[in-house]
Amino acid sequence: MPNPTAAMLVIGDEILSGRTRDANMHFLAQELTKHGIDLKEVRIVSDDAEAIETAVKALSQAYDHVFSSGGIGPTHDDITADCIARAFGARIDVREDARALLEAHYDQSGLELNAARLRMARIPDGATLIDNPVSTAPGFTLGNVHVMAGVPSVFRAMVASVLPTLTGGKPLLSQTLRVNRGEGDIAANLSALAQDFDDLSIGCYPFQINGVFGANVVVRGTDGARIDAAITRLARELDL
Amino acid sequence: MPNPTAAMLVIGDEILSGRTRDANMHFLAQELTKHGIDLKEVRIVSDDAEAIETAVKALSQAYDHVFSSGGIGPTHDDITADCIARAFGARIDVREDARALLEAHYDQSGLELNAARLRMARIPDGATLIDNPVSTAPGFTLGNVHVMAGVPSVFRAMVASVLPTLTGGKPLLSQTLRVNRGEGDIAANLSALAQDFDDLSIGCYPFQINGVFGANVVVRGTDGARIDAAITRLARELDL
Repeated sequence: MPNPTAAMLVIGDEILSGRTRDANMHFLAQELTKHGIDLKEVRIVSDDAEAIETAVKALSQAYDHVFSSGGIGPTHDDITADCIARAFGARIDVREDARALLEAHYDQSGLELNAARLRMARIPDGATLIDNPVSTAPGFTLGNVHVMAGVPSVFRAMVASVLPTLTGGKPLLSQTLRVNRGEGDIAANLSALAQDFDDLSIGCYPFQINGVFGANVVVRGTDGARIDAAITRLARELDL
Repeated sequence: MPNPTAAMLVIGDEILSGRTRDANMHFLAQELTKHGIDLKEVRIVSDDAEAIETAVKALSQAYDHVFSSGGIGPTHDDITADCIARAFGARIDVREDARALLEAHYDQSGLELNAARLRMARIPDGATLIDNPVSTAPGFTLGNVHVMAGVPSVFRAMVASVLPTLTGGKPLLSQTLRVNRGEGDIAANLSALAQDFDDLSIGCYPFQINGVFGANVVVRGTDGARIDAAITRLARELDL
């Protein structure tokens, strides 16, 4: 059975403007790979209701899972929850289970659960809460969309809450062979290898260090023995 | 007149698998912001012909410019040029102007211009070459799609070749106000500010350092005086 597929949706003007560098994508990609869920696509869109809604619909139809990051805080630009609700035609309002979590948290910290903070308890009907051990305000899963915060520490904690609840497949394994020749010299070998091992994905990533050209050949797949066989054959062909 | 819009398309299994971290998006986002071109969306797709073609078509219809990175080398997994040609219904083959560039380069370096390397001269009919001062093999512009290499040093050089040829708009300016209070405390101020300055984009990015919550309020727009006014008002309201 093929592995489940996934997409990530990053909501973030601050990334598109170049102000900050996304920190969540690389983390999620690595976690999904370990868990045997194939990340097939990432989209980064701006904090714009129509852009978010359109992307959520497209991705949730095309993939088994969608993981979103960003836009679920207390301020006016945090519109993700409402957009996801609209994409699924779900009603959204302050939900009592989420409000109870926030009340307990703010009671303890002596801060007021004001109208802005209460926005973080807006959860669509039918959604399951995602635990947030860092700062309490929960994420949620609606349909196949897992809605998480953008703050990296919170995002990571939410991924750790969600992933064990999802059925994974076989972890994607990989081996890398470093070749100190230009890509163009080994392209014919790689092409033949890719044909004979069509159950594996064979990528070639060139580098240039101090004017010397080389390439990292990365062989990926779910069967470790096949990856061994492919790497061994290539090393032999290239006299490595 | 509103600024031109753009999307970026990253072609990269190695990013989706978590093996490497994308290095080009952040660079391009900053360059476009300086040049007055609004980056509205980024998509990362795998090295898959259908995924690339679908994304190119969607993005080139939705935005004024599309910048792609990755998949234009000499190996079997370098399929971007052919996919872009198909997306535009253009014929593609080894083109003499590109072949001449490669011939001169490989003659000089004493390497053979073999069949694999000649693949890098496959350029769609009607495309304009993008200069590559780092490693010669050119990128190209077809329609509104600018096709560039994924190797960061080459990507940057190609961006530097392309950007001056594009009509930009007003550079996107921004100012940041650091507030040492939780987002929830300042949300009402921000919401009112966003309403009164609806020509600006006002984002709020929370942080947590040693257990203390704070937020960076970022005000973006093309009119520096308006940004000044918004920041000044907010600072006064918050007694900063």
